[in-house]
Amino acid sequence: MYSADKTASDAAWSAIRAVPRQTLGEMFSSDDDRVEKLTRRLEWGEGEERLGIRFDWSKTHLNGDLLTGFEKLADAHDFAGMRAAMLGGEEVNVTESRAAEHTAQRGIGADPSVEEAAALHERMKLLVEAMHDGALGDVKHCIHIGIGGSALGPAMALSALTRDLELVDTHVVSNIDGLALEAAFAKCDPATTIIAVASKTFTTIETMTNAESALKWLGEGGVQDPSGRVVALTASPEKAVEWGVDETRVLPFGESVGGRYSLWSSIGFPVALAAGWDEFAAMLAGAKAMDEHFRDNDGRANVALLAAFADRYYAEVRECQTRAVFAYDERLSLLPDYLQQLEMESNGKRVTADGEPVDGPTAAITWGGVGTDAQHAVFQLLHQGTHLVPVDFIASIAPGDELDPAHHRILLTNCFAQGAALMAGDKGEDPARHFPGDRPSATMLCDDLDASTLGALIAFHEHRTFANAVLMGINPFDQFGVELGKRMAKDIEKGGRSFDASTEALLAAAGLA
Amino acid sequence: MYSADKTASDAAWSAIRAVPRQTLGEMFSSDDDRVEKLTRRLEWGEGEERLGIRFDWSKTHLNGDLLTGFEKLADAHDFAGMRAAMLGGEEVNVTESRAAEHTAQRGIGADPSVEEAAALHERMKLLVEAMHDGALGDVKHCIHIGIGGSALGPAMALSALTRDLELVDTHVVSNIDGLALEAAFAKCDPATTIIAVASKTFTTIETMTNAESALKWLGEGGVQDPSGRVVALTASPEKAVEWGVDETRVLPFGESVGGRYSLWSSIGFPVALAAGWDEFAAMLAGAKAMDEHFRDNDGRANVALLAAFADRYYAEVRECQTRAVFAYDERLSLLPDYLQQLEMESNGKRVTADGEPVDGPTAAITWGGVGTDAQHAVFQLLHQGTHLVPVDFIASIAPGDELDPAHHRILLTNCFAQGAALMAGDKGEDPARHFPGDRPSATMLCDDLDASTLGALIAFHEHRTFANAVLMGINPFDQFGVELGKRMAKDIEKGGRSFDASTEALLAAAGLA
Repeated sequence: MYSADKTASDAAWSAIRAVPRQTLGEMFSSDDDRVEKLTRRLEWGEGEERLGIRFDWSKTHLNGDLLTGFEKLADAHDFAGMRAAMLGGEEVNVTESRAAEHTAQRGIGADPSVEEAAALHERMKLLVEAMHDGALGDVKHCIHIGIGGSALGPAMALSALTRDLELVDTHVVSNIDGLALEAAFAKCDPATTIIAVASKTFTTIETMTNAESALKWLGEGGVQDPSGRVVALTASPEKAVEWGVDETRVLPFGESVGGRYSLWSSIGFPVALAAGWDEFAAMLAGAKAMDEHFRDNDGRANVALLAAFADRYYAEVRECQTRAVFAYDERLSLLPDYLQQLEMESNGKRVTADGEPVDGPTAAITWGGVGTDAQHAVFQLLHQGTHLVPVDFIASIAPGDELDPAHHRILLTNCFAQGAALMAGDKGEDPARHFPGDRPSATMLCDDLDASTLGALIAFHEHRTFANAVLMGINPFDQFGVELGKRMAKDIEKGGRSFDASTEALLAAAGLA
Repeated sequence: MYSADKTASDAAWSAIRAVPRQTLGEMFSSDDDRVEKLTRRLEWGEGEERLGIRFDWSKTHLNGDLLTGFEKLADAHDFAGMRAAMLGGEEVNVTESRAAEHTAQRGIGADPSVEEAAALHERMKLLVEAMHDGALGDVKHCIHIGIGGSALGPAMALSALTRDLELVDTHVVSNIDGLALEAAFAKCDPATTIIAVASKTFTTIETMTNAESALKWLGEGGVQDPSGRVVALTASPEKAVEWGVDETRVLPFGESVGGRYSLWSSIGFPVALAAGWDEFAAMLAGAKAMDEHFRDNDGRANVALLAAFADRYYAEVRECQTRAVFAYDERLSLLPDYLQQLEMESNGKRVTADGEPVDGPTAAITWGGVGTDAQHAVFQLLHQGTHLVPVDFIASIAPGDELDPAHHRILLTNCFAQGAALMAGDKGEDPARHFPGDRPSATMLCDDLDASTLGALIAFHEHRTFANAVLMGINPFDQFGVELGKRMAKDIEKGGRSFDASTEALLAAAGLA
């Protein structure tokens, strides 16, 4: 597993590093077919519902020689074998001896896993529809409590999909800071609120503390049986039952679904509740279309792999420590945060799957924001700063709003203009107004931004992250890096252990020593 | 202006680069007074209202030799002279021939500017109080329209200061995407809504387009005189009047207040309206306390300069392309975005104030988020990734919530534990569980997070940004880097110009060619 042919890998890297550098302008002017060669279009759905996404990677520095080099690198790292292993349900999470079966949630994977996911989805659908039909009484509000992968996906999808219609007013609470929960309380009536508790292990301290406080709030608000208002979303159903949730309101998911890939499982419950089951199912279908593309295409034809080629090029050859993503759509305002976790928690590692220190840089720091807002905040550095930052743009041709069409037209023209400007630059005479240009960007242009498109976009990024990991030889599915801080926080709570002088002084200043 | 003694500057950098590298652990164990030496406490207010912030920079790699080197660098760049020039209202924004007088808003600056700011504040206060008293009828909602500096400050301060009490339900709208405005409309009643239009030039396309659509919404909602419901916040009052706002509802501010420093001016109107004038005034007072510290202390005793020393060290010696800030407080959840603009738009430059290309890297990419959320999303990379990221933590000793004290205690212990863990690391035997440690962090620990503390925190970052600029010899007060993209967007709107093949293809795909 993750077995690189070291000689072939080194040879591929030598070839990649030997490719003479060309500017974007040179590459465009020397190849009339460049756009076509570096653009992929994914489509899905039938008839009037047929939709697609255009992935334009032509304004990156990839050229034919680099693509050939990276394809050899992918072969050296047995990309096809690793992909088959992941999609086949093998234990690609080698350090935790687990499979990584988020695609099975979408219908692509080992048969038993696909069947199990379908059965659990059916159960989730029944509960969602029963709640819509009043089985739990009048449900007007949902407070979804979870953190990390149990919060970012639901929050992002809710923001994307419930602007026109929100069947249940839903608030995602993650932070242990009591202010987060209080803000949700202020918007909900205990009598008509249900609490969704989302935790893979059902032991996460933030989530369990918040859940206890939410139950207290229900009780103080006159609810007779607070735990009767709880739905548990977890891979540890027995813990949820122990904690007091009736089995009928426990929606399990499989251990092989990682936290940051769990939106597709019962962790997506608040999305189905607020947006409706059909929207949740459409999200799965869009992701499945991307899964099929990812499974069935090789080398540069595979859009996730193509993107990973660019990612590794900028990280390793151009030494970019970051990558930025700007969504030119309010509905995707939480997507950069979501992608930040997906990439940084997966690939922010320092050893290979075999435990050897990696040679070069691993994951870039993913950051970004929303256009056009970001143009007025951070684009100064992108255009005139000294750091090279590869940028991704995401936009939708169809508008989401119903205001004057000028709004959406200006939104799109600005998105395209930024990519054009980063590349073209401007050799003005005044040095303070000089733009060096030759700065790369990629653009994902969606026909529309419906639930299926959101699903395809997320699945694209999941596969891109996996492809990056395979090219580096690292296991993207564990996250031991979060353990040490947790352990030291527990040690502080317990007392008796001494820390560095700064930490001791901070604890004393805060009255915690 | 920005006149470096090049020889002295080079010598200082040589000295800095020659300092042998020590680990954080080595520095702590070799100096029992390290915490004291690298910690500053700022205090303000009297009696029971006395508050403070502890700035602990001891877990950075600064040591005595580095501090001495950086103090020489500051001297070489005439830091004291540049500070006097800025605070004295000289034209430190050399490319635009303007002063940078945000401190005058707080009472520190050239006398005429301080007096003008006080007079404009008085006028703003009168309008805010008149509105609270019903002078504009029943005002329940405010839609504040602005972008960049005209939006990030108000949104951040509103989020920090109006959780307990919001006198007027206020929504900040920035994006040209019509969905942003529609989301605000959905929460407001046109009959009781006023529109604040915030634009320094009163020509920003996003803001003016959104303002037009907001007036239309008021009209369609039955408001007889929509422009009678507008308050204009601008340095171009004549343009606001031309646009149709009655002079009595135009709140001007001076040309010498930069957009990203304009929260202190009439751009802060929605904060005063929603939180009350006293809160706005307290924010100014806290900022003034920091201004005085900044004015009256030199070298390492000046906390903003001390922080800038660390910033330049990590950027230039350790080649860190980023710096992260994590606020362990929901009230500061928008602070990382605010600081991102402040730092990246100010110092994301490539030429010095004289127009010469800078030698080394300029501003780092500022990113971050809210603790504890971020621990479950991005801390994996901080602990085990291959990129060194200097981290800032911000927290408040006093809780903002009224839930079980466990919430705030766990919040703080996690904050301190993360800093301790980044530094200590853990040399476990399993390589996947190995933490290299020696990763730096700084901590800002506030006694409480009231309006004055918020003001002091922001002013600290303003001065830190300025100090970074002076050490680099760049002008932090212009932002020509945002111009090219704007110009190209206009060219697309006008038509007739051709762009690169990728941009042309995107425009065609979107039906805009």
